[in-house]
Amino acid sequence: MTAARLTTRLTERLGLVHPVILAPMAFAAGGRLAAAVARAGGLGLIGGGYGHRRWIDAQFDEAAEADVGCGFITWALERAPDLLEHVLARRPRAIMLSFGDPRPFAPRVHAAGVPLLCQVQTRADAELAIEAGAQVIVAQGAEAGGHGDRRATLTLVPEIADLLAARSPETLLCAAGGIADGRGMAAALVLGADGVLVGTRLWATAEADVAEPMHAAGLAADGDATIRTRVPDLARHFDWPERFTARVLRNRFTDRWHGREAELGRAGEAVDREWREGWIAGDPERANTFVGEAVGLIHTIEPAGAVVERMTAEAAALLAGR
Amino acid sequence: MTAARLTTRLTERLGLVHPVILAPMAFAAGGRLAAAVARAGGLGLIGGGYGHRRWIDAQFDEAAEADVGCGFITWALERAPDLLEHVLARRPRAIMLSFGDPRPFAPRVHAAGVPLLCQVQTRADAELAIEAGAQVIVAQGAEAGGHGDRRATLTLVPEIADLLAARSPETLLCAAGGIADGRGMAAALVLGADGVLVGTRLWATAEADVAEPMHAAGLAADGDATIRTRVPDLARHFDWPERFTARVLRNRFTDRWHGREAELGRAGEAVDREWREGWIAGDPERANTFVGEAVGLIHTIEPAGAVVERMTAEAAALLAGR
Repeated sequence: MTAARLTTRLTERLGLVHPVILAPMAFAAGGRLAAAVARAGGLGLIGGGYGHRRWIDAQFDEAAEADVGCGFITWALERAPDLLEHVLARRPRAIMLSFGDPRPFAPRVHAAGVPLLCQVQTRADAELAIEAGAQVIVAQGAEAGGHGDRRATLTLVPEIADLLAARSPETLLCAAGGIADGRGMAAALVLGADGVLVGTRLWATAEADVAEPMHAAGLAADGDATIRTRVPDLARHFDWPERFTARVLRNRFTDRWHGREAELGRAGEAVDREWREGWIAGDPERANTFVGEAVGLIHTIEPAGAVVERMTAEAAALLAGR
Repeated sequence: MTAARLTTRLTERLGLVHPVILAPMAFAAGGRLAAAVARAGGLGLIGGGYGHRRWIDAQFDEAAEADVGCGFITWALERAPDLLEHVLARRPRAIMLSFGDPRPFAPRVHAAGVPLLCQVQTRADAELAIEAGAQVIVAQGAEAGGHGDRRATLTLVPEIADLLAARSPETLLCAAGGIADGRGMAAALVLGADGVLVGTRLWATAEADVAEPMHAAGLAADGDATIRTRVPDLARHFDWPERFTARVLRNRFTDRWHGREAELGRAGEAVDREWREGWIAGDPERANTFVGEAVGLIHTIEPAGAVVERMTAEAAALLAGR
């Protein structure tokens, strides 16, 4: 397939070849994956996640000369706010903030001259992101893998596009959640987005830090096989605000605990240890495989660069050629 | 705006001007609304819903010379199966079955020479619809108003498009849930749909059977204002299978009962009566306003024909002109 181009405000403002952003997935999006997406012409974001400084440093080192950014879980960053300066000192290509109020952190990102992306899950969140002066708002629907809220991408994107048109037309908009191929990307663009943020499809790549049995579980799953649930976070005692659940593959663990959250919350260390041991072993039944509904569209593990190029080429063909 | 056309397999096979189907919303989609959509060149479906024969007859009478079809709630039709023959005797333009196994009813629809539409919420449902020999599968995402399940339109449509391409390429595919303007319609088409089924946007029309205060509540709401919940059905003792919840505007009633379903299930006649009195009064706080997330994209009550024509014109422009 030829390396078709899609020029949008996002590619122009951020100097990208393709309007594709790697979702900064905690654990899965390390330096290798972020670098691969950056080299292909997208925006690669390291999954700064829960704020482990040494891990983040190692990922920036691994990305080496590739120009990558970093995403944070905002409520976790609140507990280790120095980490933002630490990462800004590495001159990241962009900073993304998700799952919390971005306004306290935005001035430091702006002062560093680094583009600020704010991921939002509701219209109300988007109003905070506008106040924070985000250069890019990422509207994430509940079909996304991993953490998210309730709104769907298909309605959230045009509603925020209308909000931005009225209130802040220079702010760019990207769509996240459920986008795994050129069809989803083309849909996002006609809904009013300037680009897409891609998680699950880039999770299913050779460069992602994902255990092989979890990759295999993802490839075997269809889109009906996921569930949005609090149970992985309750098991491992991750202190997520209640509105944010995680989309994962349904498995023995979710079958056992989903719907019994109060009991799980009291279950203590044995369940926590069992989950973490399962995670380290890459066991898709004892721990959880963090993927979105778009897993039903994914049938191969590929190099990330090939995924980015094919998505864009497919989207360009759909938008040019019907 | 000019009356642009979008020719798809759906318009060709069903003889439509626009690839737009009215969602057969119980109570709201009566003969007047179905006829208005049919006259505008879409497919108008009366909301046969819970199977009240006299109401359905009155709606076909009201549609008069307009060629309209009828949608059923499949699990309700199982309890009054003679209703299907009764409606087929009126020579409907199409029959749509939603929320249940269509296979027992499909042979009678096929024998009558009437196009069969099956609405599905999962990939597993789609496999039953293929077995039923549906001419059109409607893939409905959870962003839809009223009853639905968990999958999102953005991932369900391409996944079922792939399933149909492999297993039943002559079966048409429509997208439902979250589609309220030309952007959503264009998105559905690039995702692989041949047309769209529209609920909330056509609920917000002059011809819909909707109480004025509920229309007003819908116009005032943004897309964050809805919730998927079982509480309206528990209140009125409607015996919906547990997987199907209803998306409604959050209000005093849902604030009170959502999360207390077991208690509501035991609450008995007083709550039921209060809800029904609220419904008859058109009270958006005592009863529920059945709309989807796309309500945040809707700011006017208009004639249904104008909505159908504008959606198509906007979608055609987006797909032709980027």
